[in-house]
Amino acid sequence: MAERILRVNMTTLSGAFEEVPAPWVGLGGRALTSAIVAKEVPPTCDPLGKHNKLIFAPGLLAGTPCAQSGRLSAGAKSPLTGTIKESNAGGTAAQNLARLQIKALIIEGMPTDDSQFYGLRINKDGVEIAEEQALVGKGNYEVISTLMQRLGQKIGVLTIGPVGEMRMSAANISVRDPDGNIRSHGRGGLGAVMGSKKVKFIAIDDANGPGVAIADPEKFRSAAKTFAKAILEHPVSGEGLPTYGTNVLVNVLNEAGGLPTRNFRTGQFEGHDKISGETMRETIVKRGGKPKHGCHAGCIIQCSQQYVDEKGEYITSGFEYETIWGFGANCCIDELDTIAYADRMMDDIGIDSIEAAVIIGVAMEAGIIQFGDGPGTLGLLKEIGQGTPLGRILGNGAASVGKAYGITRVPVVKGQGIPAYDPRSVKGIGVTYATSTQGADHTAGYAVATNILKVGGFVDPLKNDGQVELSRNLQIATAAIDSTGLCLFVAFPALDIPETLVAIIDMLNAKYSLSLTGDDVIGLGKQVLKTEHAFNNAAGFTKHDDRLPEFFAEDPCAPHNVTWTMSDEEIDEFWNF
Amino acid sequence: MAERILRVNMTTLSGAFEEVPAPWVGLGGRALTSAIVAKEVPPTCDPLGKHNKLIFAPGLLAGTPCAQSGRLSAGAKSPLTGTIKESNAGGTAAQNLARLQIKALIIEGMPTDDSQFYGLRINKDGVEIAEEQALVGKGNYEVISTLMQRLGQKIGVLTIGPVGEMRMSAANISVRDPDGNIRSHGRGGLGAVMGSKKVKFIAIDDANGPGVAIADPEKFRSAAKTFAKAILEHPVSGEGLPTYGTNVLVNVLNEAGGLPTRNFRTGQFEGHDKISGETMRETIVKRGGKPKHGCHAGCIIQCSQQYVDEKGEYITSGFEYETIWGFGANCCIDELDTIAYADRMMDDIGIDSIEAAVIIGVAMEAGIIQFGDGPGTLGLLKEIGQGTPLGRILGNGAASVGKAYGITRVPVVKGQGIPAYDPRSVKGIGVTYATSTQGADHTAGYAVATNILKVGGFVDPLKNDGQVELSRNLQIATAAIDSTGLCLFVAFPALDIPETLVAIIDMLNAKYSLSLTGDDVIGLGKQVLKTEHAFNNAAGFTKHDDRLPEFFAEDPCAPHNVTWTMSDEEIDEFWNF
Repeated sequence: MAERILRVNMTTLSGAFEEVPAPWVGLGGRALTSAIVAKEVPPTCDPLGKHNKLIFAPGLLAGTPCAQSGRLSAGAKSPLTGTIKESNAGGTAAQNLARLQIKALIIEGMPTDDSQFYGLRINKDGVEIAEEQALVGKGNYEVISTLMQRLGQKIGVLTIGPVGEMRMSAANISVRDPDGNIRSHGRGGLGAVMGSKKVKFIAIDDANGPGVAIADPEKFRSAAKTFAKAILEHPVSGEGLPTYGTNVLVNVLNEAGGLPTRNFRTGQFEGHDKISGETMRETIVKRGGKPKHGCHAGCIIQCSQQYVDEKGEYITSGFEYETIWGFGANCCIDELDTIAYADRMMDDIGIDSIEAAVIIGVAMEAGIIQFGDGPGTLGLLKEIGQGTPLGRILGNGAASVGKAYGITRVPVVKGQGIPAYDPRSVKGIGVTYATSTQGADHTAGYAVATNILKVGGFVDPLKNDGQVELSRNLQIATAAIDSTGLCLFVAFPALDIPETLVAIIDMLNAKYSLSLTGDDVIGLGKQVLKTEHAFNNAAGFTKHDDRLPEFFAEDPCAPHNVTWTMSDEEIDEFWNF
Repeated sequence: MAERILRVNMTTLSGAFEEVPAPWVGLGGRALTSAIVAKEVPPTCDPLGKHNKLIFAPGLLAGTPCAQSGRLSAGAKSPLTGTIKESNAGGTAAQNLARLQIKALIIEGMPTDDSQFYGLRINKDGVEIAEEQALVGKGNYEVISTLMQRLGQKIGVLTIGPVGEMRMSAANISVRDPDGNIRSHGRGGLGAVMGSKKVKFIAIDDANGPGVAIADPEKFRSAAKTFAKAILEHPVSGEGLPTYGTNVLVNVLNEAGGLPTRNFRTGQFEGHDKISGETMRETIVKRGGKPKHGCHAGCIIQCSQQYVDEKGEYITSGFEYETIWGFGANCCIDELDTIAYADRMMDDIGIDSIEAAVIIGVAMEAGIIQFGDGPGTLGLLKEIGQGTPLGRILGNGAASVGKAYGITRVPVVKGQGIPAYDPRSVKGIGVTYATSTQGADHTAGYAVATNILKVGGFVDPLKNDGQVELSRNLQIATAAIDSTGLCLFVAFPALDIPETLVAIIDMLNAKYSLSLTGDDVIGLGKQVLKTEHAFNNAAGFTKHDDRLPEFFAEDPCAPHNVTWTMSDEEIDEFWNF
């Protein structure tokens, strides 16, 4: 059976399978969502209007036994940034879709009567669209547990919380993880697009589906083994991440002076020890939680965890460095438990935890609450979920808060909040923030790897030299990895252990009976970036949007007392490839 | 004595006169504010940051005996649109500045400690900058009356209300009118720029100033007489406006099917008679108010009025068609008194009444209050003045409300609310909205004149033919008129009575001892537009921003049931000159 597209029209409330058009046959994940958005969405359309489309696409290796291959890409024109957007997440949905041979799910149109929400049920025969009332207004935890009761424990679930229903630009899309908990397509407000389509949830039932075909299983198995070995051998993916999770970075970035603190005033946080990965692991182990956990079947890095309270009861999982940085250093809250409750609340109401961290930082800047106010922070998150006027100011992103309160220290690029690495003291990531087609996004080209972790060589984080080239190479490689459905952390071994990339290419060739080379993979990455850039240009973006907020060039960041010094001309060199 | 620039630095809290640089000598009003912004303000700067500058410039004919010459231009980078901005108003300040031979007032920098507001006192010797506490948080009526008590009855006053203090993007700048009431630099949020500079008010004392020099008084007097005669002879400026004010247009536009109703759903309002200029005049006369009133000394059109309550007590003046349309037809409030109280409240808290009308329309669209809810509307305006969270959503413009509530029927261009003429049924004004350097602004190229009022010929409002050329010619002429300091309504006689333009040029030549021709004036208009367009392009705007919201192309407007049908290519022809 050939892979297929499932197209759902929310105006007519109907859906059908389609053949995959020839140009999309070799694409998956981000390459496919971006190709579909570029082809079918008018670049200047209203992101919350009927012309936008929401696309989900598993990666090229989804559903195979390859480690780390369970990431799902979601794409659309973003209501937060106005740019094209791809946001990927773990969970079970990518593998469910892959086993149904669904290469992409396209949701288009919107109901003319917007008073009603719908649930989509996808199975081997297509899609059923039904009015949904019971779950409207409910949080994502309840949606997932209710759907598992209704439809079985193995169901894949994509869902939005109240924030997405209310079409706020920081709304995320949640995905059920293997334990029935939550992973998120966090960035760029794709939950608002889903809300505008009036889709509360998408349940994916892969029972009796065609499954995943591999052309040369033996060759695949051998490459997958080499690949897994490389992952486990690398100190970051094989040791740092499994032991401490992504939160291993709090102490690393604090030491490097690149941990944005107090709404990006300085690069070091006095309370770093209280929120570090080391403290977190110790706390989880002491309380009987799980220090290691995979976000999808086949994950061998296990950077997730289950964070529990003093009684050992589950609070949250997927408790990431960026969230902990954001509420910790950025908002000066030095209590892990408070941040864990915030994380759970954000997963439940359905808001991107990175954007929310930047939002709360700007809210503190505006004096709505004081820096360090944990209970106040939880109160603000609650308001977002309730959709109070203040909640709506906050739920529409950090730029929205800055606008409402006339604040100029607003760390965003293209309207998206800047994450957990100060661009003044980690200049490579600054180039990524400035130039990414996605708005400020560390995952688009994680120069922290080479600037700070010394993976893939070393480029001095405090100097301008080499940063554009570093960011460019990483963004190209990332666009390719995001198309395979592999977790981005495979980039660590890929940058240092030559066998890794060979193994990935071998798996692609073995699955699809192809003869791709390394150049082809680089070519794919370039093509993805150029497709996305062309969409943004046609939407009205220019090089003037590839800039950091002016305070980074003017306010020095301690302890290095450095400013952002990349010239416009240097930055604009990025697109010369 | 030569004309001079007064430059005030709010970082150092100092100010001084400067010579007028050669390229600015022949400029005034909008030509000068735009030239200064283009030269001195970095196009990509944060509008509320220290790099933006706020400029005031009287027109070239300000302070002379020429009728209608008392308009003051204010310019900056707009926090509402992100574009360059010029907003002009009547009142007494232009003439006060002209009599001090101040060609432009430039306010730059901002205090490092933002907890303190300042008052500026300008006189013949320069500027005094003093901390101000008593008037902070007060409305514009109280500011003006207090300053008249403090500094004399003839003082010129520019002031911001609480909305400007809070740096909301719809904040205006108020100007004292000859009776101590209020005129406004309404559009584009320049009050927020003044608030960001921490300037609460600017008092202008022209006592013992050098006065206005006229090179050839005899020639000037003769031309001024011809000019005044033409104004009084034209049916619009000599009869319609003096009798009914600008509100003469409610019935005209309703008849034409171009009166945007219920947040731009249809082009006719059932309650039009209750809010028309005819009804308004009758009401004012019956109650003992003033049906005619000039916004500045030397105004012979007298389109303003003093609207009073049933006891004959003053409510508001400068009660314009656009305000009455906006709260009337657009928000479906068919009570003039309610709209008058809204107008007074907006003048007092300091918010643009056009933007506010579009804001409330979108708020009704979002369901915050119902269409037609007068008391609810006054309540929302009160919240804006108080700076509650809801007030901040509203006070930052119609686009802010649309964003907060995820609404797509948001009538804005470049972030600025579309005023009182539906672009579907008055297509020439639609071209102006789309292409103006200022965001949606009817005054930038008032094609309604030729589409509906048949002034300057006739171009069928329902057809695309000729609209781009019409809007272009009007925008060029308007840019020139805005530079003279003349009220835009002189365009009515100028379009129909050939002597009018000749008289304007004669007055310019007589005042400055020049030999300008009609071509020079057109050349000036073109230069202004090109300067502004270049600024916007350098700020990151492209042709993709010269577009109306998509609902205009999709939802037909009754009674003509027409949509917006200008193609992108047609619109983009605008800049070919």
